[in-house]
Amino acid sequence: MKRKIRMGMVGGGRGAFIGSVHRIAAAIDGHIELVCGAFSADPEKSRLSGEDLYLPADRVYGSYQEMIEKEKALPEGVRMDFIAIVTPNHVHYGPAKMALENGFHVVCDKPISFNMEEALELEALVKKTGLLFALTHNYTGYPMVKHARWMIKNGDLGKIRKIVVEYPQGWLSTKEEDNNYKQAIWRTDPKQSGIAGAMGDIGTHAENLAEYITGLKITELCADISIFVPGRQLDDDGNVLLRFENGAKGVLHASQISAGEENALNIRVYGEKGGLEWHQMEPNTLTVKWLDQPKQVLRPKMSPLAPDANANMRVPAGHPEGYLEAFANIYRNFAMCVQARLAGLEPDPVYTDYPTVSDGVRGMHFIDKVIESGQSDQKWIKM
Amino acid sequence: MKRKIRMGMVGGGRGAFIGSVHRIAAAIDGHIELVCGAFSADPEKSRLSGEDLYLPADRVYGSYQEMIEKEKALPEGVRMDFIAIVTPNHVHYGPAKMALENGFHVVCDKPISFNMEEALELEALVKKTGLLFALTHNYTGYPMVKHARWMIKNGDLGKIRKIVVEYPQGWLSTKEEDNNYKQAIWRTDPKQSGIAGAMGDIGTHAENLAEYITGLKITELCADISIFVPGRQLDDDGNVLLRFENGAKGVLHASQISAGEENALNIRVYGEKGGLEWHQMEPNTLTVKWLDQPKQVLRPKMSPLAPDANANMRVPAGHPEGYLEAFANIYRNFAMCVQARLAGLEPDPVYTDYPTVSDGVRGMHFIDKVIESGQSDQKWIKM
Amino acid sequence: MKRKIRMGMVGGGRGAFIGSVHRIAAAIDGHIELVCGAFSADPEKSRLSGEDLYLPADRVYGSYQEMIEKEKALPEGVRMDFIAIVTPNHVHYGPAKMALENGFHVVCDKPISFNMEEALELEALVKKTGLLFALTHNYTGYPMVKHARWMIKNGDLGKIRKIVVEYPQGWLSTKEEDNNYKQAIWRTDPKQSGIAGAMGDIGTHAENLAEYITGLKITELCADISIFVPGRQLDDDGNVLLRFENGAKGVLHASQISAGEENALNIRVYGEKGGLEWHQMEPNTLTVKWLDQPKQVLRPKMSPLAPDANANMRVPAGHPEGYLEAFANIYRNFAMCVQARLAGLEPDPVYTDYPTVSDGVRGMHFIDKVIESGQSDQKWIKM
Amino acid sequence: MKRKIRMGMVGGGRGAFIGSVHRIAAAIDGHIELVCGAFSADPEKSRLSGEDLYLPADRVYGSYQEMIEKEKALPEGVRMDFIAIVTPNHVHYGPAKMALENGFHVVCDKPISFNMEEALELEALVKKTGLLFALTHNYTGYPMVKHARWMIKNGDLGKIRKIVVEYPQGWLSTKEEDNNYKQAIWRTDPKQSGIAGAMGDIGTHAENLAEYITGLKITELCADISIFVPGRQLDDDGNVLLRFENGAKGVLHASQISAGEENALNIRVYGEKGGLEWHQMEPNTLTVKWLDQPKQVLRPKMSPLAPDANANMRVPAGHPEGYLEAFANIYRNFAMCVQARLAGLEPDPVYTDYPTVSDGVRGMHFIDKVIESGQSDQKWIKM
Repeated sequence: MKRKIRMGMVGGGRGAFIGSVHRIAAAIDGHIELVCGAFSADPEKSRLSGEDLYLPADRVYGSYQEMIEKEKALPEGVRMDFIAIVTPNHVHYGPAKMALENGFHVVCDKPISFNMEEALELEALVKKTGLLFALTHNYTGYPMVKHARWMIKNGDLGKIRKIVVEYPQGWLSTKEEDNNYKQAIWRTDPKQSGIAGAMGDIGTHAENLAEYITGLKITELCADISIFVPGRQLDDDGNVLLRFENGAKGVLHASQISAGEENALNIRVYGEKGGLEWHQMEPNTLTVKWLDQPKQVLRPKMSPLAPDANANMRVPAGHPEGYLEAFANIYRNFAMCVQARLAGLEPDPVYTDYPTVSDGVRGMHFIDKVIESGQSDQKWIKM
Repeated sequence: MKRKIRMGMVGGGRGAFIGSVHRIAAAIDGHIELVCGAFSADPEKSRLSGEDLYLPADRVYGSYQEMIEKEKALPEGVRMDFIAIVTPNHVHYGPAKMALENGFHVVCDKPISFNMEEALELEALVKKTGLLFALTHNYTGYPMVKHARWMIKNGDLGKIRKIVVEYPQGWLSTKEEDNNYKQAIWRTDPKQSGIAGAMGDIGTHAENLAEYITGLKITELCADISIFVPGRQLDDDGNVLLRFENGAKGVLHASQISAGEENALNIRVYGEKGGLEWHQMEPNTLTVKWLDQPKQVLRPKMSPLAPDANANMRVPAGHPEGYLEAFANIYRNFAMCVQARLAGLEPDPVYTDYPTVSDGVRGMHFIDKVIESGQSDQKWIKM
Repeated sequence: MKRKIRMGMVGGGRGAFIGSVHRIAAAIDGHIELVCGAFSADPEKSRLSGEDLYLPADRVYGSYQEMIEKEKALPEGVRMDFIAIVTPNHVHYGPAKMALENGFHVVCDKPISFNMEEALELEALVKKTGLLFALTHNYTGYPMVKHARWMIKNGDLGKIRKIVVEYPQGWLSTKEEDNNYKQAIWRTDPKQSGIAGAMGDIGTHAENLAEYITGLKITELCADISIFVPGRQLDDDGNVLLRFENGAKGVLHASQISAGEENALNIRVYGEKGGLEWHQMEPNTLTVKWLDQPKQVLRPKMSPLAPDANANMRVPAGHPEGYLEAFANIYRNFAMCVQARLAGLEPDPVYTDYPTVSDGVRGMHFIDKVIESGQSDQKWIKM
Repeated sequence: MKRKIRMGMVGGGRGAFIGSVHRIAAAIDGHIELVCGAFSADPEKSRLSGEDLYLPADRVYGSYQEMIEKEKALPEGVRMDFIAIVTPNHVHYGPAKMALENGFHVVCDKPISFNMEEALELEALVKKTGLLFALTHNYTGYPMVKHARWMIKNGDLGKIRKIVVEYPQGWLSTKEEDNNYKQAIWRTDPKQSGIAGAMGDIGTHAENLAEYITGLKITELCADISIFVPGRQLDDDGNVLLRFENGAKGVLHASQISAGEENALNIRVYGEKGGLEWHQMEPNTLTVKWLDQPKQVLRPKMSPLAPDANANMRVPAGHPEGYLEAFANIYRNFAMCVQARLAGLEPDPVYTDYPTVSDGVRGMHFIDKVIESGQSDQKWIKM
């Protein structure tokens, strides 16, 4: 008989942002239950966070190591099924590795790790253990993004020629890391984030979205990477020329100093027959443009869409779904796959689409190459 | 010690729409747990629905009467705290009344009841029992709607002169009730919906939104109510002139035959000093217009907003929240008030704003008067 | 041999607004030449205005009477072909009548006259003389408006059910007529404007647009007409329920106290098969909505459009045309018809579409009835 | 006494596009009169075009050489004051040079010439003769563009950090030059256009707009220039990284194979304190974004704007002006400067802003460098 999938969380204690996003995303569809957590490196903070979340005290742990060990010792009908890792980048690898080695599936925030070596090791470990690993490149969870990918796969736009993907934010226009602002502090600290700032935090989302929608890999790039805010340690802006495997060209620009911008991840793709455009801040609209027919505005439930787009919607036309629902689609799809695994079945194909450890490796490769390009006088760097 | 609030659901079995909306809304913030349900008048369907929702078999009931009786008999640490009523209109009153009489709080979908008598009786019962009653006029759950109300209350727009509220949908442009389409069937059936079709289903949302945002009551109305689809039994379109208590004038139009429209609840309010505009389909934007300053686009987390607007947001700027989050705000606020009640405390004021039984009575009054006006040759009907 | 058509202008001296609009509209396409004018009731002001316009002194007159008399005495190759009347409403009838009686064609601003009697007399005179009379209901000059009409005429939307036309402005939110603001003074003065303020100035545009696009006549209306600004003499706001000859219903609201609004003439039309939407402030976009196909965004030169839409565009796709070009379309079409008349030919059908004296009579009828309804307790007033 | 300025046109005969744009732009404000033309290299076509334009036969010439010679021989009160050159790129230099050498002012379409040598020669000739030379980089004629420049000059946005300028079109997605389509043929022909296709035709507009608005010069660029349509001779797409003199970074991309795009010239500029955004296809809106105040939407006549923005508007708020009016602003400003010259006066400063021969030289330099970069393996090319 089907049962809820049990989640243990690493990170996401009081004051965190992405932890609560993961919890909401996991809760929305009712297939996942938060059963335990190691919410903070500070055991008292972890304990208080567990109270906030109505967890029994004996399922709130002082470290992820403790959580994995103790949960493993619990009986099957009780212990967690997977861990959700929602810590800063430098604390992804440790819990992910230990979870995999102890038989737990993993959901991990992006970027997958602190550096490429860790990413490759996790990829190998996933392969070896056969466990499920979801990476929350959440923007591919939007149904209209899935429909865009489906249209391009179908050849509706013809051969793809040009891709423009952009991700401007403005929230790091001033030196927020000096204002005791937790989100800013770890993102601008090379010891916690790795070699990249904005390019790791949001540039990877742009890269992932472009490759996901088009099904094309970036083969070469040429980057101009900048730190605009004086004293900042990691990049806060980047402009990148892209070349894709099929000969398509593109532009990627991402920024956290684009003053006044919110979270404006946008993509435009042009093929021989037509183009499409999607904006994360108005995610339920996909605009499709044609050479000699009127522009079309595709919307959930208003016309035939891709099966896996429809499978990732919850409400009727004109009832906007948003960021949390897109995030929830990853969790829901992951949960369906875990359930199928528990039942010894193949998962329903409409639920198998979520980013995996390989997307994580790809993202780390992008980070390495875009930073290398930014420091190089060579025009094109191969990916 | 704080604990999750326990919900029992009436209605919302397989094939329903609004039931899953309520469940998601209740689940998002993690303060509410679905513990039991009477999901369908068909006991087998109720049982299967309970299985879908991972409920134990002994908490899935064949009728709301059974549920209320058996839950009441359970110990305090186990039994439900409130019922959520998500049935068609004619099955609101029965479970609401019985729940209140047996000491359970109530969340009820709108309109509150089948007719005015039932509404008034429920209002009296709430007053008598002192129990909490939330009505899911969900559109007032949007944070930018709360900010709009706050601005007007502050006098930012000056004395209000004109209000235009509209709610066009197109999904009943054809006779969907003949297509075995459950949502269409009960909404167009006077035995299940009451005297009004579109005016009850969505006209009341428009009325509620206008009165909520402006803080002004409609005092007179003049309506032209139509059935456009041949053979339909209830109105599918209505155009209404409005007069408000302070001398403001307005227009309300709502329709389910506005072909090609999704769920376009929109409102514009104009005062002596400025105006504002909000669109449900792009709910995170509130446009404010001034006589001689530039138009402003207010967005979550991008500038100072009303305290209760901020208290009803979950994610950073540019991460769109939508319909389900607005709906969840009602559940979250209701849950906070139940928790405070359990703890013997006053609730935090930022959580006390949710529609109540009085909004339900007001909505039934609107339905009565707008239908009366539609049938009358008298120009103005008093509310 | 073809020659430019010669225009004489009545009104439009220094400080006027609509006079320069007419001159630009007449000049854009190069078929019309301004040859003379009586620009002001003040002869010195008329003279100075003529100088501004590079006119020879002997073609600048102190009154329209003088202009018509003296121009009539000039030889055919020199004298004006038509007069353009750009004065306040109470000075439309006089020059129009005299021009027609003396063999000159007429272009007249709207509303056509001060009252219905004048309008009917002008209509009879046009009929009697066979001269050409264009009324500058300029909003029907937009190409996408013409395409909308064409689609509805073709039956693309099916039988029309609902029409929402609105015209909010905010520029009279304060008592501008006390600020020596010429545009406000005459528009709010019953001696110059007639019985209606906003309903005459912009309500007639809304009425004209709705009837033009749908091809349907309003048969009944029910109006709530208001003066919001204390001390103002004429209406500054109106909300109107509409019924159309085919059974369609509608709403018209127009306002000059909608604080912060610019010139937001908008229309939505819904039929059995689909709907359309057009906004004057973004006039090159026509949105078409369908029951079960994606929404379409029609744009000039991007897909097949109606012949007379295409004939009223000047530039390639994405080069926005605006208000002045739409106004110019009326002048251009009128000029083409005058040229054809001079050549003894039938005009090309793509140029015959411009508002005429009959639209003017219709507009005066609307003004009479909407004001009558505003003052009446009777629900429906027949048109 | 003031008189109209007299224009002679080179090019723009039947079937041309930009010729009629120039004629309309010159006509709109009534300060310029078309008095003569050499409309085509084919004398018969020139003659017929002159007839279309109501010109006397003796002022229609078979070549620009003939026009300049014969007009020079006419008396001052009759002969043209300036020539407007609206031919393909390779026929700009000849007439411009001859006009300047014979004492005529010049308005020339962009890019200024076929190559850099010609541009520099024209610049020297303008300097030597002291004659006026306007280059129709028309997009800087939009009033909201002028206001954007003024805000940045005022320091409203603080030090500029990032600039994103883009110009996607889709009309050359297929090989239109094989379809006997005149506009496509010359633009894709190196013998008529020079070394650049899209980068010359529209890339220069993007470059000009970015430098105009920000007041910053591009110092280095890195380009990826492509021909996507097989068999095409000149670039139809380009992506360019930019560096500016003050340390700002940027991206410029322009394309004529962005399928389904119209004429989407857009710019975003970000400074330390705020950002702004402007879209050519909705030119009357300038969006300004701030770090911690609401986004503002600036519109003509709705709030205080720069003096030279206001001086380049013709109609009240909400009456959209478009492409032709922006183009007309260049002609009007040029005409005002010629008039002042004729009167021996300094022109009014609000009319002195139009692109000149130096903008033309700058544009040719951009073309040279962007094409050089496209062919180079060197990352940065200095400008």
